[in-house]
Amino acid sequence: MTKQIKQMKLGAFFMIPGHHVASWRHKEANTDGIFNFDFLKELALTAERGKFDALFVADGYSYEHNGKDSQRVGISFEPFTLLSAVSAVTSKIGLIGTVSTTYNEPFNVARKFGSLDLLSKGRAGWNVVTSGRDSEAQNFNLDQHLLHHNRYERAEEFVDVVTKLWDSWEDDAIVANKQLGIYAEGNKIHPINHEGQWFKVKGPLNIPRSPQGQPVVVQAGSSDDGKELAARTAEVIFTAWQTLEEAQAFYKDVKGRLSKYGRQEDELKIMPGVFPIIGDTEEEALQRKQYFDSLIPEELGIQYISSFLSIDLSGLSIDDPIPQLPEVDSINGGKSRFQLLKDLITRENLTIRQLYTRIAGARGHREIVGTPEQIADQLELWIQNRAADGFNIMPPYLPGGLDEFVDKVIPILQQRGLFRYEYEGDTLREHLGLEKPINQYKNTLATTTI
Amino acid sequence: MTKQIKQMKLGAFFMIPGHHVASWRHKEANTDGIFNFDFLKELALTAERGKFDALFVADGYSYEHNGKDSQRVGISFEPFTLLSAVSAVTSKIGLIGTVSTTYNEPFNVARKFGSLDLLSKGRAGWNVVTSGRDSEAQNFNLDQHLLHHNRYERAEEFVDVVTKLWDSWEDDAIVANKQLGIYAEGNKIHPINHEGQWFKVKGPLNIPRSPQGQPVVVQAGSSDDGKELAARTAEVIFTAWQTLEEAQAFYKDVKGRLSKYGRQEDELKIMPGVFPIIGDTEEEALQRKQYFDSLIPEELGIQYISSFLSIDLSGLSIDDPIPQLPEVDSINGGKSRFQLLKDLITRENLTIRQLYTRIAGARGHREIVGTPEQIADQLELWIQNRAADGFNIMPPYLPGGLDEFVDKVIPILQQRGLFRYEYEGDTLREHLGLEKPINQYKNTLATTTI
Repeated sequence: MTKQIKQMKLGAFFMIPGHHVASWRHKEANTDGIFNFDFLKELALTAERGKFDALFVADGYSYEHNGKDSQRVGISFEPFTLLSAVSAVTSKIGLIGTVSTTYNEPFNVARKFGSLDLLSKGRAGWNVVTSGRDSEAQNFNLDQHLLHHNRYERAEEFVDVVTKLWDSWEDDAIVANKQLGIYAEGNKIHPINHEGQWFKVKGPLNIPRSPQGQPVVVQAGSSDDGKELAARTAEVIFTAWQTLEEAQAFYKDVKGRLSKYGRQEDELKIMPGVFPIIGDTEEEALQRKQYFDSLIPEELGIQYISSFLSIDLSGLSIDDPIPQLPEVDSINGGKSRFQLLKDLITRENLTIRQLYTRIAGARGHREIVGTPEQIADQLELWIQNRAADGFNIMPPYLPGGLDEFVDKVIPILQQRGLFRYEYEGDTLREHLGLEKPINQYKNTLATTTI
Repeated sequence: MTKQIKQMKLGAFFMIPGHHVASWRHKEANTDGIFNFDFLKELALTAERGKFDALFVADGYSYEHNGKDSQRVGISFEPFTLLSAVSAVTSKIGLIGTVSTTYNEPFNVARKFGSLDLLSKGRAGWNVVTSGRDSEAQNFNLDQHLLHHNRYERAEEFVDVVTKLWDSWEDDAIVANKQLGIYAEGNKIHPINHEGQWFKVKGPLNIPRSPQGQPVVVQAGSSDDGKELAARTAEVIFTAWQTLEEAQAFYKDVKGRLSKYGRQEDELKIMPGVFPIIGDTEEEALQRKQYFDSLIPEELGIQYISSFLSIDLSGLSIDDPIPQLPEVDSINGGKSRFQLLKDLITRENLTIRQLYTRIAGARGHREIVGTPEQIADQLELWIQNRAADGFNIMPPYLPGGLDEFVDKVIPILQQRGLFRYEYEGDTLREHLGLEKPINQYKNTLATTTI
């Protein structure tokens, strides 16, 4: 039985100056670059040289401050402003920004992504998240964040409103006929008149339909609510899995949900996160891993776990085992990551120190420590065995971690036929192999005129 | 008595493809450029070549659609995405974006401007407005917009919250000490714990203090509420006046309100809008004016006035006089512009056609039709007679209207000593001659350690 070679999609997950929580302490880390656009521009150009499908930025709406000196960075540029600036100095790479449905309005979000898609000539993507921290709620007139289920109800309606607004101008609504004095044709502009449980939005949007028709919709939650939302509305899922078997089960589960929404398997790309620590030899890679771990102050490691799992570790020694965790149903934060870490702790019986060195870089995503060939082998294994359609690459530190991946791993993937040598097109949809959505009014028109 | 020559500040007010409502029909107008960043980039570079202090973009949150074909453009890029992209391809010019306090959250706005100020290395400015159209309210879960006075109450508290958030990180909070493992000093990061009538925001912001300390705060309303808000919080006012006397009265009024907030006259720059139609001879300028007017479809002219003044003109002929307008106190839209137009109509006894040809370009701002010398004369007259500190230039069409101003008017202003040959510094504050605000916690610290 011969298996056809499937090419992978690759995201460059930009966390500055690196995904490892102590990356900023790395001897080569450029801490001055964190808020210097010149540094970010170089990173974006490196990712584009590596033919990444997109660069991806996460987001949050609070800085958790306990009054003490901070051992982590925890702050970053706001995604729309950063990605728009990057759009002006790149020409091919996709630009995926995280924006929460919890503390924004759909009209503003639809418009900003439409604007970014126009500015970038079709390279925008929206990573849809809900906000689950009390510290975020407290910056938006609330004491506590919304319940998990309410967050998802709001998110689902939010995505619907945004999608309707993106369709409110048909592709050919603007005619700009100077002679007749008609800039736009009225019958191709549609109020949406949305009235739902969370939102009442009349429309139309005040920006025309963008080059991709709709910016690519990305989703990151992997809870049951999250999977269902993704199956209905998402085109890319960023997810986190530790083992091939877990990733395969998730892949099968989510792809299996698509048909009920009339969708095909290839309309949704599943891209787990991968945190690569690369060495020219396996030994060098392991030494680098140890070097990263040595940079984590114990206090930060403990604080990091407490925050991730919402548990109190005070009074425990760093070499004690992790205490018993509550059931996932009883928590109101991010459910899928909680379950993943609970499984990991149980499976490997980890101490506090062991856990934090495991998650201080990858935060629950898969960590691969090895040579470029070993990393390529692992990516190939997952891509050819229905565990992933691609990966979101999380460089441990910058710029080195991205340079190494682009210069050492990508050429191997290319030689094996697993990754592109050149971009196939100009838009993010073209890179990802996703169709441009047909405007809903275009469909109606075609039907009614037959 | 010798009078010292005062230099003017200049904003380039970008409305694409021009301020004249029918500019897109101009034979040289680039209608393909309206949503093409390459075109906007060239305009920004032209403005920077002309040493403008800043480029300025307006904003709104709805597209008013009556189902008919549209004779105007009425749509544009969203300010944050556009200005961020422009920041990446320019190096000196200030970037002033309009953002409403009515349909946004202060945490998000503080962060986006902080981000833009960091990206642009100190060139961001915020034009604070309130939103006063029902069509906007209807995109944000409401049926009708807020009452005028409530909008200003909310705006005032909004600006306070944003300003506090901009101060929540002291300038030197980030130390990035790799050796000690301290990224930021805890005692230099401050929650704001704001609890007011409209907002409850804990803070701190999740982005550090930006190069300007605080992005420049601009204000555009000229009603009594607006003037008081400006006197307390604004550093620049964009305003609209038809005559020297009106502008002088406004100038005196606003400058006179500053001392009660402990502020000096030069801490607030007053910049009226100017809509220049330039010809190499006066005759050519007048012909150009007539050409612009000829581009306005009658229907659009009437619709434009109806929308501006919220009056019903149906059944009237285009050469009828404007009907009696209500008192300004009885309206809930933008009050200052309404009063300006009412005064203009009364003073000049205008017909419908005459009014729309007067406001179709300048929208109530001052229109100057003439040679480069005549335009320079008028700007000089206002600047030297306490009617203005500078002007917001509104090119009728693009790119020609901006090119002409930069190539023909600015050299005259420079030769007369009325405008800079080179930027004095790198930040918008440096261009405008505004001090960087001292962080409020820095003051406290200085006091307590004496």
